Amino acid sequence: MVTLCKPAVSVPEHVITMEETLDLARKHHAGHPQLPLALRLIGNTGVAKRHIVQPIGKTLEHPGFQERNELYEAEAKARVPAVVEEALRNAGLRAADVDMIVYVSCTGFMMPSLTAWLINSMGFPSHTRQLPIAQLGCAAGGAAINRAHDFCTAYPDANVLIVACEFCSLCYQPTDLGVGSLLSNGLFGDAVAAAVVRGRGGTGIALERNNSHLVPDTEDWIAYSVRETGFHFLLDKRVPTTMEPLAPALREIAGAHGWDAGDLDFYIIHAGGPRILDDLSRFLEVPPDAFRFSRATLTEYGNIASAVVLDAVRRLFEEGDQQEGARGILAGFGPGITAEMCLGRWTTPAHPAEPPLSARRIVGYSPRFQHARSKT
Amino acid sequence: MVTLCKPAVSVPEHVITMEETLDLARKHHAGHPQLPLALRLIGNTGVAKRHIVQPIGKTLEHPGFQERNELYEAEAKARVPAVVEEALRNAGLRAADVDMIVYVSCTGFMMPSLTAWLINSMGFPSHTRQLPIAQLGCAAGGAAINRAHDFCTAYPDANVLIVACEFCSLCYQPTDLGVGSLLSNGLFGDAVAAAVVRGRGGTGIALERNNSHLVPDTEDWIAYSVRETGFHFLLDKRVPTTMEPLAPALREIAGAHGWDAGDLDFYIIHAGGPRILDDLSRFLEVPPDAFRFSRATLTEYGNIASAVVLDAVRRLFEEGDQQEGARGILAGFGPGITAEMCLGRWTTPAHPAEPPLSARRIVGYSPRFQHARSKT
Repeated sequence: MVTLCKPAVSVPEHVITMEETLDLARKHHAGHPQLPLALRLIGNTGVAKRHIVQPIGKTLEHPGFQERNELYEAEAKARVPAVVEEALRNAGLRAADVDMIVYVSCTGFMMPSLTAWLINSMGFPSHTRQLPIAQLGCAAGGAAINRAHDFCTAYPDANVLIVACEFCSLCYQPTDLGVGSLLSNGLFGDAVAAAVVRGRGGTGIALERNNSHLVPDTEDWIAYSVRETGFHFLLDKRVPTTMEPLAPALREIAGAHGWDAGDLDFYIIHAGGPRILDDLSRFLEVPPDAFRFSRATLTEYGNIASAVVLDAVRRLFEEGDQQEGARGILAGFGPGITAEMCLGRWTTPAHPAEPPLSARRIVGYSPRFQHARSKT
Repeated sequence: MVTLCKPAVSVPEHVITMEETLDLARKHHAGHPQLPLALRLIGNTGVAKRHIVQPIGKTLEHPGFQERNELYEAEAKARVPAVVEEALRNAGLRAADVDMIVYVSCTGFMMPSLTAWLINSMGFPSHTRQLPIAQLGCAAGGAAINRAHDFCTAYPDANVLIVACEFCSLCYQPTDLGVGSLLSNGLFGDAVAAAVVRGRGGTGIALERNNSHLVPDTEDWIAYSVRETGFHFLLDKRVPTTMEPLAPALREIAGAHGWDAGDLDFYIIHAGGPRILDDLSRFLEVPPDAFRFSRATLTEYGNIASAVVLDAVRRLFEEGDQQEGARGILAGFGPGITAEMCLGRWTTPAHPAEPPLSARRIVGYSPRFQHARSKT
């Protein structure tokens, strides 16, 4: 049974409130013909505050793409390890128990990715698989969970560490003045999240099925323009309408599993914005409160890109009254437009007295799982 | 049995020979104090010619990072589909039979990645998983094969398309004047490669085991510096020495499988440069000719990054006299420093009369493999 354990999430210490965001927009775009629309859209996000890696004054400066990437690397190295340690503790594992690291981040670019540094500096085995994904944007949190699920399905003794590191504030582009950009400036926040997917054992969401869905011919609805000044985020005004084609994809994966997407016990949905959550709850005919974990993430942190679904899962854990076997769906949405979806059931270990996996694996360097199912 | 089928490889029409490369270096770096060393290093690569997406005059201009990325996208869209079609034909499959696309490329950056465009324009199912990897550099070819192997191990009915699209000439940086840069300017070439990994059926390398290995504390030996002008490739002079720590990793994966890395029937090794091939054949105690596929790639195309291993596999197929069950190793090396290795055996279908997979899957939209092994 492949289980997504409790995520750890950390947000930076610098805070910007909705009121400050609106004030900044009024000040910086005083003569902008669409300022009233932008203010209304930002106001509608319901984002009460966001957390960012630098004070807002620094955030609004653009020191150049190179300096921003160096800042991304420094901030990632400063902020990721503690979150990873907490995620490992949540899963009852040590670094030595990890077989793969899936590192997702679309707000900075490094080669080698942070995976190499994490392995070197945090004691992960030298055989840890590195799976860095930079190009799935907000859908990457769902993709990371799904690829971890696949890996543990192939190798049932494996454990996969997922890290989502998103410093959206480092992609702020002061020269982008379209309404989509002004809205994005008031919507996205920074966060680091991590979680372990265990092939065996652990408390959390037992992953049972996953799927992906690409909405045809929407490649340019959410995209980066890659320029001398870095990544410029393009957000088409049609994006909020995507729940109409995506709701059937959620119904389909649930139906294929014998479940009804409108009648599940928990929902972990990418909080791209309020309209996405409103529309999807309407299309699935579930009460707005069913998406409370995603709504809380959006309100308190803004859209934290690939980290949204992990933070919403953390809130599910912290609510604390899931019944054994409770059924749920998780869906990340991002560029493509792509949905990465999975289904799972709340599970607690059948045999709580079983020794933790680390105790069983301590017999030395042994990527034992490599034997599993490889000689078919 | 998970099988890597025959890769398709295409190189661009513009050719630059070793002699032209040396002439250009003499002309552009006439006063460079280390020019003699650079000329000697380039001469030692044994790269007789390389293929590039633009004429050499255009290649040596730097039109800016944005224009280069736009060129990358245009060239990828122009060159990838035919290679993908050939790879599908080689595997006896249609686009509709593909469950995942692993797209590896470190020489341009797009979000969404080319996977979304491929799905939209080539008829891949909307549920095709997208796995774009940009940060594993030259090791990504091996990583793509290994992640495809894992996916088909989890879902034995699945098929994975691998695409490696590397336009190294679009990362030429005229202001980089270190010896490592001058050498790189004479070493790397452009290519597009694709191959299908079939969960069942197919002729090729039946994948039996894979592993990854990170050489400790070598993160900055092969790296990108990401700047306003794009990706600047940093190549440390210690890189050619890495076969000493990596040869034991190859011995270890073979040993864990009951094989001797020094006594296999075929070798597919990343042709990073001639020293890598010379050293590794010495450390593994195999004759230089054992690496003939990689040497031919290096001589004819230069180092084509993540596409090297796929091109070397193509040459193995084209040599044409592999015995059923012949044992081999494949290893990609890249930033980290990371090795992505796998072991496999030459296989031809046990039942040639069996209908092709496409005929069996034509019963409509059915990601059937999702059931497999998910309810453990």
